[in-house]
Amino acid sequence: MSFNTFGHMFRFTSFGESHGLAIGCVVDGVPPRIPLEAADIQRELDRRRPGQSRFTTQRQEPDAVKILSGVFVNEATGRQETTGTPIALLIENVDQRSKDYSDIKDKYRPGHAGYTYDVKYGFHDYRGGGRASARETAARVAAGAIARKIVPGVTVRAALVQMGEHKIDRSRWDWDEVGRNPFFCPDAQAAKFFEGYLDGVRKSGSSVGAVIEVVADNVPAGLGSPVYAKLDAEIAGALMGINAVKGVEIGDGFAAATLRGEDNADEMRAGNDGKPLFLSNHAGGILGGIASGQPIVARFAVKPTSSILTPRKTVDRYGANADVMTKGRHDPCVGIRAVPIGEAMVACVLADAFLMHRGQVGDAPTWPFAKR
Amino acid sequence: MSFNTFGHMFRFTSFGESHGLAIGCVVDGVPPRIPLEAADIQRELDRRRPGQSRFTTQRQEPDAVKILSGVFVNEATGRQETTGTPIALLIENVDQRSKDYSDIKDKYRPGHAGYTYDVKYGFHDYRGGGRASARETAARVAAGAIARKIVPGVTVRAALVQMGEHKIDRSRWDWDEVGRNPFFCPDAQAAKFFEGYLDGVRKSGSSVGAVIEVVADNVPAGLGSPVYAKLDAEIAGALMGINAVKGVEIGDGFAAATLRGEDNADEMRAGNDGKPLFLSNHAGGILGGIASGQPIVARFAVKPTSSILTPRKTVDRYGANADVMTKGRHDPCVGIRAVPIGEAMVACVLADAFLMHRGQVGDAPTWPFAKR
Amino acid sequence: MSFNTFGHMFRFTSFGESHGLAIGCVVDGVPPRIPLEAADIQRELDRRRPGQSRFTTQRQEPDAVKILSGVFVNEATGRQETTGTPIALLIENVDQRSKDYSDIKDKYRPGHAGYTYDVKYGFHDYRGGGRASARETAARVAAGAIARKIVPGVTVRAALVQMGEHKIDRSRWDWDEVGRNPFFCPDAQAAKFFEGYLDGVRKSGSSVGAVIEVVADNVPAGLGSPVYAKLDAEIAGALMGINAVKGVEIGDGFAAATLRGEDNADEMRAGNDGKPLFLSNHAGGILGGIASGQPIVARFAVKPTSSILTPRKTVDRYGANADVMTKGRHDPCVGIRAVPIGEAMVACVLADAFLMHRGQVGDAPTWPFAKR
Amino acid sequence: MSFNTFGHMFRFTSFGESHGLAIGCVVDGVPPRIPLEAADIQRELDRRRPGQSRFTTQRQEPDAVKILSGVFVNEATGRQETTGTPIALLIENVDQRSKDYSDIKDKYRPGHAGYTYDVKYGFHDYRGGGRASARETAARVAAGAIARKIVPGVTVRAALVQMGEHKIDRSRWDWDEVGRNPFFCPDAQAAKFFEGYLDGVRKSGSSVGAVIEVVADNVPAGLGSPVYAKLDAEIAGALMGINAVKGVEIGDGFAAATLRGEDNADEMRAGNDGKPLFLSNHAGGILGGIASGQPIVARFAVKPTSSILTPRKTVDRYGANADVMTKGRHDPCVGIRAVPIGEAMVACVLADAFLMHRGQVGDAPTWPFAKR
Repeated sequence: MSFNTFGHMFRFTSFGESHGLAIGCVVDGVPPRIPLEAADIQRELDRRRPGQSRFTTQRQEPDAVKILSGVFVNEATGRQETTGTPIALLIENVDQRSKDYSDIKDKYRPGHAGYTYDVKYGFHDYRGGGRASARETAARVAAGAIARKIVPGVTVRAALVQMGEHKIDRSRWDWDEVGRNPFFCPDAQAAKFFEGYLDGVRKSGSSVGAVIEVVADNVPAGLGSPVYAKLDAEIAGALMGINAVKGVEIGDGFAAATLRGEDNADEMRAGNDGKPLFLSNHAGGILGGIASGQPIVARFAVKPTSSILTPRKTVDRYGANADVMTKGRHDPCVGIRAVPIGEAMVACVLADAFLMHRGQVGDAPTWPFAKR
Repeated sequence: MSFNTFGHMFRFTSFGESHGLAIGCVVDGVPPRIPLEAADIQRELDRRRPGQSRFTTQRQEPDAVKILSGVFVNEATGRQETTGTPIALLIENVDQRSKDYSDIKDKYRPGHAGYTYDVKYGFHDYRGGGRASARETAARVAAGAIARKIVPGVTVRAALVQMGEHKIDRSRWDWDEVGRNPFFCPDAQAAKFFEGYLDGVRKSGSSVGAVIEVVADNVPAGLGSPVYAKLDAEIAGALMGINAVKGVEIGDGFAAATLRGEDNADEMRAGNDGKPLFLSNHAGGILGGIASGQPIVARFAVKPTSSILTPRKTVDRYGANADVMTKGRHDPCVGIRAVPIGEAMVACVLADAFLMHRGQVGDAPTWPFAKR
Repeated sequence: MSFNTFGHMFRFTSFGESHGLAIGCVVDGVPPRIPLEAADIQRELDRRRPGQSRFTTQRQEPDAVKILSGVFVNEATGRQETTGTPIALLIENVDQRSKDYSDIKDKYRPGHAGYTYDVKYGFHDYRGGGRASARETAARVAAGAIARKIVPGVTVRAALVQMGEHKIDRSRWDWDEVGRNPFFCPDAQAAKFFEGYLDGVRKSGSSVGAVIEVVADNVPAGLGSPVYAKLDAEIAGALMGINAVKGVEIGDGFAAATLRGEDNADEMRAGNDGKPLFLSNHAGGILGGIASGQPIVARFAVKPTSSILTPRKTVDRYGANADVMTKGRHDPCVGIRAVPIGEAMVACVLADAFLMHRGQVGDAPTWPFAKR
Repeated sequence: MSFNTFGHMFRFTSFGESHGLAIGCVVDGVPPRIPLEAADIQRELDRRRPGQSRFTTQRQEPDAVKILSGVFVNEATGRQETTGTPIALLIENVDQRSKDYSDIKDKYRPGHAGYTYDVKYGFHDYRGGGRASARETAARVAAGAIARKIVPGVTVRAALVQMGEHKIDRSRWDWDEVGRNPFFCPDAQAAKFFEGYLDGVRKSGSSVGAVIEVVADNVPAGLGSPVYAKLDAEIAGALMGINAVKGVEIGDGFAAATLRGEDNADEMRAGNDGKPLFLSNHAGGILGGIASGQPIVARFAVKPTSSILTPRKTVDRYGANADVMTKGRHDPCVGIRAVPIGEAMVACVLADAFLMHRGQVGDAPTWPFAKR
């Protein structure tokens, strides 16, 4: 089964192939009366857009988004707002014309989905990876831009925390730095290093992996749907579903396996603001699949892109051995552009969880509870 | 929203609290005419059952399963078989009586879901963790026992590959060993070591985390539903949704972030059996969210249980600071019992993917394709 | 695909065959902190229970329901309340033992689902109709009893308005009368007539159809999910899915086809209570798939049961012609017991619509709107 | 909750408002390798298109459809075929410019959804009915054109069988006649009568209702998903969800309520073609929610459009009483254009049921079964 819809109540359905006429999505379940202009979405798309530095693919796509439906000027406010009906977003493909695909038409590129699409469906649109192209993630970022507006107060930010074997120094973490370098890196010194490092990778025609960290602040305690749509499970599925992602962690993640119980569980004290104060955040903001009110922290690992300039052993669709090589533009570290995508997916999960929680629970008594 | 149904076409809905009358599930979408006896399910439940060695909690639950519906004797075969209608499975709780909950009734245990359930729903069944208890996973194992019968030829096995900081030696991997030690450990030497190590942890009233690896063999190429129910995304969500899991990897996982493109993508050659031969399996059997026909390899990290015998700082539901401590039985390494649970969840994902693929695609031409 | 789950946010999954061990359901998505005792559910089940008059089947089923999960005593109120986790309901089958099925084991009874189940699944549980038995509807009534508690102020009532060709006189409609006769008939005089009429049908070993009307009062304006889960579409699907139902109408229904536009559209005036006053209710309380605040009115037609004491032409599962006849107990008018089932299904649709609306929209400005 | 997705496995999500930039849908779950050109869809859209006779609205919409994704030329066949990925269909709105909405901007038109949309969402796009406009049904017809290609051998046809109080003479039924008159009427004589009759209605500025009958032939026995996605329940929901529909029947429908059991159940005999022969079709081709292999027969009632040229009492959004009147073009009998829409919805239900059945059951033994 094809399954191109994400989410339960806040849902989007994406469509489009890398080199088809257009890509886009239909976002459904959006609450009414949220101010929304195309520019709100464009801003996020521009962060993901290729060709903005020498460290991403040189494909030139303006990624200009059009809102086709679901918004209208509300006379009560004078603003364009969501109406509660589906919001269709359209992004025309521009830089896809007059390609020569003879080289990859029949040959599977190792690490790409050509073989699996072919064997699943019996044939596939091979142009630029077709539906399996990371170009599809523009639709996610667009949907995420709407999702960001749904949970009051929440912010979702992400940063690149590792490139190849090189981790950033977390003591130098500065969110403001993320917007200042082409790597979305919060450590200025590491960003400096990555420039030279990635130039080397790029010039050698190779590629390298990365680790991205997503942090959501001000998530209301209580969001999350036990037991099969737990907030952490939804985030894990959402992030693992991004192209090239091979691992996902929440909070301490794999490091938690090495800990003792007394070092892992986050102790609590009464806070001053009517909320409990957690003395640490090993859990990454989620307990039993439900948000605790602490920052939600997730990390995901992105493999090095398989589009490299070295010949690779493969087979063609007719059963013959062959060699194949990517020509021209490629992303030396696709992990970089995964930063806004990871943010978008987490924002979508949170918007969805917020609506589901409000639907089932409405208003609930808050902690601390009154003694009877 | 409560969300207690897992899966799309092969679906199960679980119910029950740790110390209520019973737990169980309703498994829907099961193909008809599959031989099924309660014993088939009991066998898997017995692997997860507590109290089988000194290394798991001493709670005594026979976990005896009853099939309430969905099976009937097929005259054509003389066997009891699935009928295609929902299969209700019931496991009565036995060892839940006459507890004293005064200690945890009002106090949140750090690392447990008491606070988040309370703040989400306004109150909660605190007895033994209620719905958040790992006891719910018995329903998953039961559903998984049915799932295992759905995809012809597939086997799903798991093993503990790390306890605390101690990893097994993969060169000593022996699947037969997994059934011979109380840790589901494929490395006999490591298992020997874990005995002493975990005894130490247990006696000190502490707990420790673990990493589990799940391997699915003979998965038909083509299973998986791009782009928002990718096979790896579904597995990630399924495993992250198991109690105490904090990280999930597919194939090389986080290590992929450190690789170069030429070291990560799996090259291919024409095989002798009408299938391509992959020269490595960094991808863990999944490309573009679709099974490649290689073994599917997933790992997940389990945190140390938070039920430990050391007093911990916390708050109560009425806003006061307090200390809390687990008394009596506990699991020094809950990761052990997560082994059959991980298998079950992956089996469920595969059964679901198999039915979805058959539904949309039916029969497809197979590789190598005929030239026109 | 088997599809045994009803609803989107308020959802229940039913299981069980007529003559298996038990039937029941798991109700998910129920808001927390709703008072709920087994007696609340039993009361509704007792209305549907067979064997209460000579006009329904004499099968003796106490239909005693047990709540297995999802409720707990809330200390803040001292009452047993829903916890927000799944509520499993179990009804053991009692009067199903030591039957002789030799007559229907191989022969399809005309008008029953034996042939279609057999041809769909390859074999089926023929005992008492198996999964296709109207016994399954007990699960719906049980779920409906919970649904009734979800939308504040709503009442859902139904009544039999036609038996065979005989319609009630609507000018004599008295809701109180519904509980006083064995037909759930709101017209005392018609009820009197039905006694003799149905006795005749019953004694001749025949059966007759009926029409049921369901009315939901105090439904909040705004409920309903355009455009593919419209409130009327959901009600139509819910009612048509009841065993033996062949037609569904909303408001004027088929009679609307005969009207002119000026006679059909309901005019409005400003009311005194901050709501518009509709001058008629041809629409049956729904416009554009959304509740208007008027009473919701739906009707459904129930065919005469096919279990009659006359021999009928049929085939057996092995391809031979045969005759078949129902022996013993039967329902001369299954439409009677459909009355509480129709109520339950509409209550479930409304509960679901209420949670979905609250989830997406939260609080909205109410009519009349403030001029800017 | 907005809910703009129809179907389970064959699914489409529609978007767009009557007078926005465009309408359209994304069709997901379509099997791969089905030949598909825009012309296949255009043909069906042209049947629904307004302005083709004086008996439908004179709005001029070319309804030209573009396929944005999900198709590709298959080298093995040389044809454009579905790829199994989502098919996005776009129809630009053309005749929506420079309207004067001052008359309906604030006033609710009786029988329209203006009030309910306003009260649900807090404001709404009032232009031409916005999302509630029947214009949305173009998306359904487009999706239906794809659905028609999925179940091998199935044909879905519909016809107008009643206009106002005037029923056709079923003895004169001729499917070929349906394409020859502007009413999709299978009775040439009735069609002749309807011309004069509807001219009278139109000239008086009024409107009238209609009844449509949909017949699906060659539906494979076994399709349908008990018990909450029964084929008849799905059809009922699908048809009731069409704008202006107030009633749905399967087979004998409401007339079944008047029958005796012996007159309603369809007797069977062994046929010559390995299928049972039904001696009648009161059931309308569905038993227990599953297709029996007989023609599926459904009828639905369409109310007269509420857009009429007579002033009507209403209220405005600010609480004042008012009068409102439709000006200019209107559909004197919207039931006419509902004919291709009804076909499309039934085709979508059948495609969905086919994929779900294939998914769960795969191949099953066929009747007559072999004796053991």
